[in-house]
Amino acid sequence: MALHPSVAGLDTVRIVGTGLLGTSIGLKLRGLGVRVLLSDPSPMALALARDVGAGEPDPGGVPVSLVVVGAPPDVTASVVAAELARHPEATVTDVASVKAGIWSAVLASGADITRYVGGHPMAGRERSGPVAARADLFLGRPWVVCPADSPTASTRTDPTRVELVRRLAAAVGASPVVMPAVEHDEAVSLISHVPQIAASLVAARLVKASDPAVGLAGQGLRDVTRVADSDPALWAQILTANAGPVGRVLREIRSDLDGLIDALAALQAADGDGGVSQAIGARATVARVVADGRTGRERIPGKHGEPVTRYAVVTALLPDSAGQLARLFNDIGEAGINVEEFGLEHAPGQQVGLAGVSVLPAAREALEKALIERGWHVVA
Amino acid sequence: MALHPSVAGLDTVRIVGTGLLGTSIGLKLRGLGVRVLLSDPSPMALALARDVGAGEPDPGGVPVSLVVVGAPPDVTASVVAAELARHPEATVTDVASVKAGIWSAVLASGADITRYVGGHPMAGRERSGPVAARADLFLGRPWVVCPADSPTASTRTDPTRVELVRRLAAAVGASPVVMPAVEHDEAVSLISHVPQIAASLVAARLVKASDPAVGLAGQGLRDVTRVADSDPALWAQILTANAGPVGRVLREIRSDLDGLIDALAALQAADGDGGVSQAIGARATVARVVADGRTGRERIPGKHGEPVTRYAVVTALLPDSAGQLARLFNDIGEAGINVEEFGLEHAPGQQVGLAGVSVLPAAREALEKALIERGWHVVA
Repeated sequence: MALHPSVAGLDTVRIVGTGLLGTSIGLKLRGLGVRVLLSDPSPMALALARDVGAGEPDPGGVPVSLVVVGAPPDVTASVVAAELARHPEATVTDVASVKAGIWSAVLASGADITRYVGGHPMAGRERSGPVAARADLFLGRPWVVCPADSPTASTRTDPTRVELVRRLAAAVGASPVVMPAVEHDEAVSLISHVPQIAASLVAARLVKASDPAVGLAGQGLRDVTRVADSDPALWAQILTANAGPVGRVLREIRSDLDGLIDALAALQAADGDGGVSQAIGARATVARVVADGRTGRERIPGKHGEPVTRYAVVTALLPDSAGQLARLFNDIGEAGINVEEFGLEHAPGQQVGLAGVSVLPAAREALEKALIERGWHVVA
Repeated sequence: MALHPSVAGLDTVRIVGTGLLGTSIGLKLRGLGVRVLLSDPSPMALALARDVGAGEPDPGGVPVSLVVVGAPPDVTASVVAAELARHPEATVTDVASVKAGIWSAVLASGADITRYVGGHPMAGRERSGPVAARADLFLGRPWVVCPADSPTASTRTDPTRVELVRRLAAAVGASPVVMPAVEHDEAVSLISHVPQIAASLVAARLVKASDPAVGLAGQGLRDVTRVADSDPALWAQILTANAGPVGRVLREIRSDLDGLIDALAALQAADGDGGVSQAIGARATVARVVADGRTGRERIPGKHGEPVTRYAVVTALLPDSAGQLARLFNDIGEAGINVEEFGLEHAPGQQVGLAGVSVLPAAREALEKALIERGWHVVA
């Protein structure tokens, strides 16, 4: 198979660790004509990756241009160091979700750090292992590439190596984002690790909640806690690897939380003895926490990387049977209206769904009219 | 118009406060043939509620069977007390989202507390005011009804009054849930108020985050922070009114958070000096927080009040043009597959969407096959 132009320089790629990420990379590269050599300490995982078409078991002795390490976070640095030694010409990258500690550990190992480029493809799925791999796992996802801009040439990442890893990311369909490792680790603490912890802390309160209490749960609680449905062992590894940045953000949250707890206590006390001026200050503290949250929330980019648009949501009642969603979207399509977001919610204890159709505000009236005309029950 | 059998006993209903909730109740009751008398301190809000068909301005002097108070949380207790005095035969209920404090304040006012039944319809929408009102706002939503089971007859809620408020909730399409006020307030602190605060605290960290950091935001952050997009003044009222229960839950979270912050600090220190046994304990603490969250998350009831099912998610690539969702759901409908949940996600910077179709695990393969056969690009 001819080499696809997008993978110039990636003639032979060695993948160490044929889990979900490593195997998915192999699958996509094979499709582009790249020779992929696979390695995994588990013969079973290796055979499965080969069988799904991600490459051939590495026979050894073949020169490679790039090594991709897809090992568990805990052992990534030592595998990277070993690969740098084993392939003295190759660029070595990895896919672990925390980056600064790996770079430091590789440096400490005495390996040629100029050939190591940290990477973090921000993709995953609910299943793991080589059988869950997909060639298009990375499509449209950010892939952070972390060169080290050290003042010492012997520890600075070689720019041609950075370019090669960028090319790998682009070749598998991801959006490469170049960012120093420390900045990356701070970013993922904010946008991934701390939200995960917040979800877990809220969800943990439900363990001892009464059945009637959890029976009142609505979409808000479901959204806040969705990511709490995660693997504790994996998250212990990730949070351990990013202990510094995560700890800093958590201390900021604790500071806000302390202020809020004090304010609520003051409000409770004021309710008893009528301490009005104290209550006004405490209430302002509570309002500020919510206001800051709204300001922060507005910074999350929306669809297509544009600023967040306030969509109008039109909700239609949906009978719980096959084909109803098709009918709904047919009707919306016939009206020529583009759906921006869509959510399906089920009312507790009811055999009926609520379909929330988000459209640009200007399209709200037309959508409501179109749905009502076509016999849909449009609700609040 | 003849009175609908579902509203027996609700011959004439007075609604005080014609905001979103009060006006929506009026609209629905009018449709059932109930005479609805409206009152609001704002002549504009009153006129709008009348114009949308929620009832007639209360001329005064008409005997009413039920008064529904839809005032802001802050003033609800005093309005309830005034209505109990003004209508000495009527049952009086309210729709505020925190209940125990209102009951105590009404009791302290010396009003006839036996005729007051606290209520909390768990419904709302992104718009407020009488114009946003819908007759079916409450459809399928829980409506908590809070009688007081006091040992003293003079402060115990009259059971026939409780039944009347239950009937109101059922008449507007809600699912009535009877629960003591204290239990209700603890429940909403867990399932609504504390999740709101957690979302705000996480989102507030984004205020000072770098653009590249927020640019990496994915669906997890969006889900955790969605409810942070809320009105600070309203939430200051709600959290103030529920300061006790919310404060208790927040102190539990702070305790877990303290443990986690200490554990992460220990892990950072161990990384430097190799304190292995200390690190093992700290990592176990981190894993326990995530594990407790997962256990709590599993308690949230799923669709139709059944236990949570682990759905299989099949993701298809969706070109960003009108009609594509219709085509997708057509194809799913043709395959006879029932969609349990649906989510639409846009990859950052890409003119393409990812449609996540959740089905029962047994239907996953059939769905994947059906979509691929019909030309869809099924991704990870």
